[in-house]
Amino acid sequence: MSDNTPILMSIAILGGTGKEGKGLAYRWAKAGYRIYIGSRAAEKAQSAANDLATMLADNAFIEGKTNLEAAQNADIIVLTVPYAAHRETLESVKDALQGKLLVDVTVPLVPPKVTKVQMPAAGSAAQEARQILGENVEVASAFQSISYEHLFEDEAVECDVLVTGTSKRARDEALSLVSAANMIGWDAGPIENSVVVEGLTSVLININKRYGSTHAGIKITGAKNPTA
Amino acid sequence: MSDNTPILMSIAILGGTGKEGKGLAYRWAKAGYRIYIGSRAAEKAQSAANDLATMLADNAFIEGKTNLEAAQNADIIVLTVPYAAHRETLESVKDALQGKLLVDVTVPLVPPKVTKVQMPAAGSAAQEARQILGENVEVASAFQSISYEHLFEDEAVECDVLVTGTSKRARDEALSLVSAANMIGWDAGPIENSVVVEGLTSVLININKRYGSTHAGIKITGAKNPTA
Repeated sequence: MSDNTPILMSIAILGGTGKEGKGLAYRWAKAGYRIYIGSRAAEKAQSAANDLATMLADNAFIEGKTNLEAAQNADIIVLTVPYAAHRETLESVKDALQGKLLVDVTVPLVPPKVTKVQMPAAGSAAQEARQILGENVEVASAFQSISYEHLFEDEAVECDVLVTGTSKRARDEALSLVSAANMIGWDAGPIENSVVVEGLTSVLININKRYGSTHAGIKITGAKNPTA
Repeated sequence: MSDNTPILMSIAILGGTGKEGKGLAYRWAKAGYRIYIGSRAAEKAQSAANDLATMLADNAFIEGKTNLEAAQNADIIVLTVPYAAHRETLESVKDALQGKLLVDVTVPLVPPKVTKVQMPAAGSAAQEARQILGENVEVASAFQSISYEHLFEDEAVECDVLVTGTSKRARDEALSLVSAANMIGWDAGPIENSVVVEGLTSVLININKRYGSTHAGIKITGAKNPTA
């Protein structure tokens, strides 16, 4: 990096050993963020971090840690765990997240009926996260519908990212992460709208099933995005 | 019409004097469907029907009736009323709808916070319709996010239509109406997914507000639609 590169914030990716978490880590590390891959087991996180470091230029900063240590070290915490581990993971890092931003990528799919929208009582996974973490944690919701396979390619992803959040600041921070990952993001409104963004995943799975596709996504039309 | 034109089904559009209802009526009448515009007042419906007949070729069949008479005369009933009139309208035509298909276009916006998704207790307007009408009425949900201004233009609409429904048959019938209106439709799954399709309207209103657009819509990417 050149000397005038600004120091970017650090991002913890909890459950970051999964395919989507690793894909996001790859793109953000390339953009200059410091990345902490989190996992229940530190060794698993370190192994994923090593894989990514090998793929990336020497200047990339990627470390593997336990979910808690990753959360403690980072400014922004991204959650990419299966919904079955959502509550437990959040409770385990609750203290470390106070005053920070959580970006929730979780989709509350209920197998085997993954084509049917089935939201938790809180309204959506992101609203449930806010309930668990309390009012001192801003929560944004994003990246649910992207295909992780595309993240390791350096070309543009043909799926826009809808971002909801508990405040405009939370949405703007998450939108910066979307741009940094070389995707097009849109402010989709308050966190209550996350039901649409999370539920869209079931709609897209349904479309893949019915039309024989594997990577259905969405694009917003009729509006101009200043970051595009 | 030529002599070998098949006799198409008849469509009642309840609340069809509104801009969206009239726009859909225009496109379906052009495609050869018999159209009954419904309104609380028959004279208002007749006036809207006359407006449309003037815009269309002589062979178009469009009549204005009360909502109840329109529902009694038609095979498919399309509901385009404001959410405040949703329950009352459905209860008034419940008997006439038994054994038929309802296509619910209603968006349960709660003014003044129309940028925030706020669904009824049933989960969505379409699920509420099914509760009111009972199991002998198939319900599909569609056309919530299209811009009615485009319907009177004969060109393609730059917004895809997501269709949910209580059965594949209901979704397929509604998808035929999407094609007949010269739009691209997608099977978005069971009626429970209507929360996504209806809620998307608030997301798009939010995008219009934030990015200074007036007609934000969506396109499905990464899948091939056989009707497109």
